[in-house]
Amino acid sequence: MQSFAFRAAIHIAAIFGIYLSLAMLIPAFVDLYQGNPDWRVFALSAFFTGGLSLAVALATQGKPPPVSSRFGFLMVNLLWATTAMVGAVPFLASSLEMSLADAVFESVSATTTTGSTVLSGLDFLPPGLLLWRSILQWMGGLGVIALGLFILPFLNVGGVSYFKIESTDIEDRPFERLSTFTISLISIYSALTLACGIAYAAAGMSGFDALNHALTTISTAGFSTHDASFGYFAHNSAILWIAIVFMFIGALPFSILILFMVRGRLDALRDPQVRVFAGYVVFFAVATAIYTRITTGAPFFETLTHTTFNFMSLITTTGYSTHDYTSWGPFVVACAFVATFLGGCSGSTCGGIKAYRFIILFELMANGLRRLVYPSSVQTVRYGDRPVDDDMQRAVVLFISSFFVLWAIATVLLSATGLDLITAMTGALTALTNVGPGLGDYIGPAGNFAPLPDVAKWILSLAMMLGRLEILAVLVIFTPVFWAR
Amino acid sequence: MQSFAFRAAIHIAAIFGIYLSLAMLIPAFVDLYQGNPDWRVFALSAFFTGGLSLAVALATQGKPPPVSSRFGFLMVNLLWATTAMVGAVPFLASSLEMSLADAVFESVSATTTTGSTVLSGLDFLPPGLLLWRSILQWMGGLGVIALGLFILPFLNVGGVSYFKIESTDIEDRPFERLSTFTISLISIYSALTLACGIAYAAAGMSGFDALNHALTTISTAGFSTHDASFGYFAHNSAILWIAIVFMFIGALPFSILILFMVRGRLDALRDPQVRVFAGYVVFFAVATAIYTRITTGAPFFETLTHTTFNFMSLITTTGYSTHDYTSWGPFVVACAFVATFLGGCSGSTCGGIKAYRFIILFELMANGLRRLVYPSSVQTVRYGDRPVDDDMQRAVVLFISSFFVLWAIATVLLSATGLDLITAMTGALTALTNVGPGLGDYIGPAGNFAPLPDVAKWILSLAMMLGRLEILAVLVIFTPVFWAR
Repeated sequence: MQSFAFRAAIHIAAIFGIYLSLAMLIPAFVDLYQGNPDWRVFALSAFFTGGLSLAVALATQGKPPPVSSRFGFLMVNLLWATTAMVGAVPFLASSLEMSLADAVFESVSATTTTGSTVLSGLDFLPPGLLLWRSILQWMGGLGVIALGLFILPFLNVGGVSYFKIESTDIEDRPFERLSTFTISLISIYSALTLACGIAYAAAGMSGFDALNHALTTISTAGFSTHDASFGYFAHNSAILWIAIVFMFIGALPFSILILFMVRGRLDALRDPQVRVFAGYVVFFAVATAIYTRITTGAPFFETLTHTTFNFMSLITTTGYSTHDYTSWGPFVVACAFVATFLGGCSGSTCGGIKAYRFIILFELMANGLRRLVYPSSVQTVRYGDRPVDDDMQRAVVLFISSFFVLWAIATVLLSATGLDLITAMTGALTALTNVGPGLGDYIGPAGNFAPLPDVAKWILSLAMMLGRLEILAVLVIFTPVFWAR
Repeated sequence: MQSFAFRAAIHIAAIFGIYLSLAMLIPAFVDLYQGNPDWRVFALSAFFTGGLSLAVALATQGKPPPVSSRFGFLMVNLLWATTAMVGAVPFLASSLEMSLADAVFESVSATTTTGSTVLSGLDFLPPGLLLWRSILQWMGGLGVIALGLFILPFLNVGGVSYFKIESTDIEDRPFERLSTFTISLISIYSALTLACGIAYAAAGMSGFDALNHALTTISTAGFSTHDASFGYFAHNSAILWIAIVFMFIGALPFSILILFMVRGRLDALRDPQVRVFAGYVVFFAVATAIYTRITTGAPFFETLTHTTFNFMSLITTTGYSTHDYTSWGPFVVACAFVATFLGGCSGSTCGGIKAYRFIILFELMANGLRRLVYPSSVQTVRYGDRPVDDDMQRAVVLFISSFFVLWAIATVLLSATGLDLITAMTGALTALTNVGPGLGDYIGPAGNFAPLPDVAKWILSLAMMLGRLEILAVLVIFTPVFWAR
């Protein structure tokens, strides 16, 4: 890696920082409009980060960036780190007196669309700060889609390349049509957010709540403006179903939506990952509703609304909750645990292992078992009706193995900071999958990450970042071969 | 699968049943010698199972068995199921009034060398019953080695084929030298048991304790004659170190010991899995001893003896304990959890994922990361200095994926019986890896599986069986292709 590549990477990150500082003016205006003195926090933060970014950008002007895998990896890591750092400034500057670990945790949780929080008393926070959290999540969601559709496929990470938007359209001439797709992406993402917000407001949310929740629903991110999350709206089942629908949409491959809008084509809906992902939600929602009906006698359909909401929230890696579902009994707890691994579709705002990887893994397993009975049989692994080549199989296995290894390491490290096994294990998991809530006495759906020690928050921040960049894009930075000249 | 194949399989299992019923005469004589009326239980059980087995064996006489993979799988499953069923008869017939679920659980836990128990008050049980538990584990251990060295490689399960005893010696003429190896195997296994027992007795165990613990140490199985397990000997560090050494030997690839005894060759000791397995133990023992030293101020070397013992016990999947190590703090708990996955070497009496699979998995991962930086680089995956072919890589991935999928399913099923997440998760884990103790309020190292509901015990019995037969040898039975004619 040459030093001018670093220079170029830092330059791009700095320009990105300028845009981010401009975004801070939105919460500043909102606070100003509402007569809240907190507007100064955002104005000051914008001035500070904007100035710093501008200085860095000017100091690093120079040759255009080299196009290589290594530069791509460097860039992706640097952009996300920059966003998280810049995003943390208003938290640090605010009247909440957050520690550095808390501010960074909250910002990383926002930009990675995780949705774990260290803040409580959300219902009484200044509106600017609430909006800043939601905006960071919304931008994070947009970044994730761009990452999944345009960048990771180019870098061959984790088998995402399989889901390039029609390789014939894009792959051969990556930059020719990129702008068309970028514009479609941003328009559709914004339009969906608007639609979601209007629906929420129509169903009875206040305008401000509708805006915030729309921003964090479509990005399957999960920050709320209430400590009770969607428990605040638990008796308005219209709102719950609107959230269910838009979380589902947010978890679909965005290429499907783009193709639908741009060309009116819907055939990508036959993508097996969509069916499997929907199958997960139906299975867990129905199974836990039946279980809860049997064990507590709660009315079935009301329970089904709640289980559908909560499992849609977990499987799309959003992280809203309507309830402390851990009080529904051990079966629901175990289901929530397993659901935290799953994730939605590729090219969406979801984290987690994701449905297509499970499909390919199960195909591999079925093939392997067949081969034990008939050792000489040769069968191709298929995804839907397309064969999956060796590279793709390797990429999926690499991702899943790395995921479990990192999960084990993070669990052990967290336990060394004094966390009990359930908190350490589900904290590491929910961070790596960018879901939001964990399980146990502290970080469960009714809890909060504030009581954890600072070291644990740093570990979790790193885990969220790893999860968001599909693990491998970060791990690669730590290989010696990456740094070789 | 033809019906005469079934007939042949049942015939072999029945003959095996006759031998097992003869083994029951040993505890019968011990009880008789000690003047314990329980000798009738064993005499009766032997008469009943022996008679039944003889009848079945006579009724199923016929053509010699067909040699095929499918027949091999059927046979392996049937033999283990028969052993577990026959082994349960004395428990059912005993004065302990055990339920069917309890008796089968105890017998499966014994024959799979798991070591989880539903019995308490071990210190006051009739000696015949204690000895029966130990004998079942010892025979189970012998069966596991035979399975790993002779049968699974032939069936290509889980990448074990890589560790055939020198393919040139055995593979081409599988039956010619098999008897030599079988005799060496049984002699060495018996000699080690004897050595272990003598060492225990010399270090201060009673003769009966020494015999029982020798039988369950060398088989890395873990039943004790005391409720406190090795906590009963906690202050005799000589006994603890003898156990550490023999658990270590039991976890080595048995082919190494055979080659050493038969040919005086030791070069197989350079096998990377031995180094990695030893590395695990050292790492966890030292890390937890340091942690315990820091957090509790306990003397380092005494603590190190205990952590070495307990992590050797977990990693070799033995399951003895000297202490309720869950009281040493969350870091030790998390380490114990992770250690439960690991397992020792191939061709040993260990369960778990096993060191060689981790080695190959990490090689695969390192290769995959290198390829992200240099997409065109082609590197072979190596195990030590030997290349690992595609089939072997697939087999390892197939095993590990199946392991995690089954773990998730078993956890959810156990939680549906009302177990809390920690008990369900670690119960499923410890059963699949044939370790013994789990974590949490019931099944921890100081606990016992008795309080679990009967359904949970059946699920765990199945999981132990799956784990013992390297998962795939059981799963294959459930594929449609297995049953096709």
